[in-house]
Amino acid sequence: MKIRAPMQFLPRWIRAYPREQFTTDLVAGLIVTVLVIPQSLAYALLAGLPPQAGLYVSIFPVIAYAFFGSSMTQAVGPVAITAIMTFTVLSPLETPGSPHYIALAASLSLFSGVLVLAFGVLRLGFLSQLLSRPVVSGFISGSAVLIVISQLKFLLGVKVTGSTTWQVISSLAGSVSQTRPMTLLIGGVALVVLYSSRKWLSSALLKTGLSSRNAGFVVRLMPLIVVVMATLLVVRFDLDQKHAVAVVGTVQEGLASFTFFAPSLDSLKILTVPALILALIGMVQNITMAQALAIKRRERIDANSELVGLGTANIVAAFYGGMPVGGGLSRSAVNVAAGAQSPLASIVSATAMLGIVATGTHWLARLPLAVLAASIVIAAISMIDIKAFRQAWSYDRADAFALLGTGLGVLVLGLELGIALGIGLSLATLLVRASTPHIAVIGRIAGSEHFRNVERHGVETIPGVLFLRIDESLFFGNLSAVESRLGTELEKAADTHDVVLIMSAVNRIDTTAMEVLTDINRELGSRKIRLHLAEVKGPVQDRLIRSPLWKALSGHVHLSVNDAFELLG
Amino acid sequence: MKIRAPMQFLPRWIRAYPREQFTTDLVAGLIVTVLVIPQSLAYALLAGLPPQAGLYVSIFPVIAYAFFGSSMTQAVGPVAITAIMTFTVLSPLETPGSPHYIALAASLSLFSGVLVLAFGVLRLGFLSQLLSRPVVSGFISGSAVLIVISQLKFLLGVKVTGSTTWQVISSLAGSVSQTRPMTLLIGGVALVVLYSSRKWLSSALLKTGLSSRNAGFVVRLMPLIVVVMATLLVVRFDLDQKHAVAVVGTVQEGLASFTFFAPSLDSLKILTVPALILALIGMVQNITMAQALAIKRRERIDANSELVGLGTANIVAAFYGGMPVGGGLSRSAVNVAAGAQSPLASIVSATAMLGIVATGTHWLARLPLAVLAASIVIAAISMIDIKAFRQAWSYDRADAFALLGTGLGVLVLGLELGIALGIGLSLATLLVRASTPHIAVIGRIAGSEHFRNVERHGVETIPGVLFLRIDESLFFGNLSAVESRLGTELEKAADTHDVVLIMSAVNRIDTTAMEVLTDINRELGSRKIRLHLAEVKGPVQDRLIRSPLWKALSGHVHLSVNDAFELLG
Repeated sequence: MKIRAPMQFLPRWIRAYPREQFTTDLVAGLIVTVLVIPQSLAYALLAGLPPQAGLYVSIFPVIAYAFFGSSMTQAVGPVAITAIMTFTVLSPLETPGSPHYIALAASLSLFSGVLVLAFGVLRLGFLSQLLSRPVVSGFISGSAVLIVISQLKFLLGVKVTGSTTWQVISSLAGSVSQTRPMTLLIGGVALVVLYSSRKWLSSALLKTGLSSRNAGFVVRLMPLIVVVMATLLVVRFDLDQKHAVAVVGTVQEGLASFTFFAPSLDSLKILTVPALILALIGMVQNITMAQALAIKRRERIDANSELVGLGTANIVAAFYGGMPVGGGLSRSAVNVAAGAQSPLASIVSATAMLGIVATGTHWLARLPLAVLAASIVIAAISMIDIKAFRQAWSYDRADAFALLGTGLGVLVLGLELGIALGIGLSLATLLVRASTPHIAVIGRIAGSEHFRNVERHGVETIPGVLFLRIDESLFFGNLSAVESRLGTELEKAADTHDVVLIMSAVNRIDTTAMEVLTDINRELGSRKIRLHLAEVKGPVQDRLIRSPLWKALSGHVHLSVNDAFELLG
Repeated sequence: MKIRAPMQFLPRWIRAYPREQFTTDLVAGLIVTVLVIPQSLAYALLAGLPPQAGLYVSIFPVIAYAFFGSSMTQAVGPVAITAIMTFTVLSPLETPGSPHYIALAASLSLFSGVLVLAFGVLRLGFLSQLLSRPVVSGFISGSAVLIVISQLKFLLGVKVTGSTTWQVISSLAGSVSQTRPMTLLIGGVALVVLYSSRKWLSSALLKTGLSSRNAGFVVRLMPLIVVVMATLLVVRFDLDQKHAVAVVGTVQEGLASFTFFAPSLDSLKILTVPALILALIGMVQNITMAQALAIKRRERIDANSELVGLGTANIVAAFYGGMPVGGGLSRSAVNVAAGAQSPLASIVSATAMLGIVATGTHWLARLPLAVLAASIVIAAISMIDIKAFRQAWSYDRADAFALLGTGLGVLVLGLELGIALGIGLSLATLLVRASTPHIAVIGRIAGSEHFRNVERHGVETIPGVLFLRIDESLFFGNLSAVESRLGTELEKAADTHDVVLIMSAVNRIDTTAMEVLTDINRELGSRKIRLHLAEVKGPVQDRLIRSPLWKALSGHVHLSVNDAFELLG
């Protein structure tokens, strides 16, 4: 047995680490730590968990991903989409924030982490392909609307009951008269400031001569500034006591210890489908983002390492913090903007967060919830991808409907049924398209060996010979379309004595199709019409040779359409 | 408003009826009446219904089909497959033969009839395409084994409890010691006689110089002869009283009246899925058989009229007899062998049956059940289609597995889950195949304009230019396969500066694929590799022109591979 040097167990980026990068990564890591505090708290609250959970899972899970992931600049941590999924799945089962709820959230994180890790180890990353981009986009946009709806109660300062979208909306409508003015004011101002800074601050700063990177940086800094200002206002004017402005409240002080547990069989049963969806969406999100980041840096990522990294991060998160994590768009953007060159920046940020949590987080107690809600709403709004819908609409209506169906499904039916609807719609589209193949009667462009659709081009044809090109693999679902088109064409040209099926775009012929072609061959034979095939692909021909059709074929198999044209002309 | 002559409401075959056919049809109809009596009784018993039900549904439903169907020689009536489906679906719910059971069977017939009629009127016949031939074949073979198992108790003369396959088999195993010897003897002899006559009688008769049609006729006559002989034996030796040979028993005398009813909401709920399966299988069976019969007679059938005919027949059957009917293989074979030329033969046979039933059916009372069971078993064995499995196995393993999965699923999991498993397997095959496309690096056959796989042929290539032909439509499920193959090829040829994707077999590019191609184009661009497309199909190009890929493409779109080869060479 070969003994490996200990270094070999370290990820490649550490072994080949260029020393001159160290300062950049160090500074970037420290900046990121401070910038992600507001969103870490916000997403923990969004998930229905205690705020410190968001800080805890910004420590060890981040380190786990730094070791096992393959992306140089992606930052993992609490993200909006996994937070809202956690809340939507668990809130109908338990009261958010209750010990049972917290335990279920940790189990969900563990379960989905194990699934993602297994997908990575077994190299099943391609399974995330089940989700087409329109479905993922619809899912995220739908979830974003769910997020906005879930935060309205904090912005208005009212209590809301119910877990489905309709229940929440009607409960909101009923209690809107109890809106607390001061809460609404604070939240509203935060919303306006954050929205304006996203929309106009960057370009305004660019006009003052600031570099694009620094301008982006100031924009990223705004949530922290707003949070700090709002907290100072609460403290200065005792808004929480005098005007009933809801605040974060008691935060558990100091570091948590690792909590190891084995999830109960009951919770596994309840969580199977949610964990699978969380895993699939997490995989897609993570790989897509890691790829986008890698392309900019001309690096490559390894999809399966990504899954190992994400899975491990979630397993660690289950035991320390108890909240699912993912690859976050805004987290990674902060990381890149701060100049991170390698996962070392993440390790620095995790360590700094460890320090912050250890030193104490009592200053979070009087942070107004309305401001956190405002920052969540702003993040959620940026997740609603109108452009993707518009593009799908102009390119392919069916995909646009799948997107819309998923989004509305998530809103009206819930996450599981919403995504199931989306997958159903995209598979149905696939089947319906394959069942209605494009079939063209073709002829030869005079003086050439090129053949084209008789309806699109002026071409020469041979009387009594029908050249039919089928632009689809033949399978049980599209044979009646082929049969009925053939019937129509034969009715149009009653003197037909030879039919040539051009198979250049037929990539497969299944058993049903082979049998139906055999039937067609026999039926045509009884009407004294010969059936020919042309341009049969190698793999298709390898199969057909073993079939009864091959022996029974009344005509010939031609290598090219032109050969058939010359022979029958 | 135009007033139509009454003739116009009659089916075309009546309006154009050739008088000289009348005698042939009359004789054929009378022969068929006598020959189908044993199977009508047997299938009613198989369905768990009183024997006369089989006779009743051989009257008015047959007339209904004669008016609305489009096949000239197909005979509709009680058939094995719908009988076993009725039994399997209803026997777990109610005791076979009980008034509730009988009412449910009538509701099932009505419900599936309405569905089939609706499919026909709405021209949704193509929906039966959902069932591939291997799935239908597996379903029928599995059902046939179920039929054989269900008849063993009659052959042994024992009582059996339970409704699932396992329960019935273990109950049989437990009671085999109580086998009644005389019952087994009668049933065994009937089995041997019927089996031998199917297997050898026809060829033996042919050797004596009998015509092939007459020989086939004698074989078809055998079940009736065996049934009559066995009944005479029972009567002569009082086998039912002295040796406890089970017989049909009291048969309701004379004609029934029409029983109109509206099915209860509860029964509709229970029967939705079974009725749908019955409808789909019935549609497939009916259309396939009508088509096969029509081809032999050089006629055409209209799939949607077939559905209207079959649906109406089942609706009528619900109110008179109360048993689902279908297009029967052996019924139609008898019809053709007897010389039927038009549906008039069926009308004659229905009228004759009406006469027989009106005259009295008391002579059926002492018909031994074991002999009916033997005739059912023989019919069932001929339904087990080993050849279809062998052919699928040699042509396409995946289809063979779908067939086997459906058959075993029907046996082990029941009809609904069995067919669901079959559909699931065939759709999964479709998806898996589409997800693993055939991709070939191609080159030009020297001195020609033909391009072929470099691995299959000796071809010329251009250094630095990669020609990749993708033999599949591009959709969300197969992009990682395309990306990974492209990556592999680019690693093999590190000096590549141009990639040409040949799209002659790409019939569609969905939104996800278009976006991924855009990503690939950008990524290749960053590595100074140009991306070209060649032989893009018309409908695909119509869409792509509206996409961001079209504008961003770093290379060109070539009309033919040869153009690209000339330009880049």
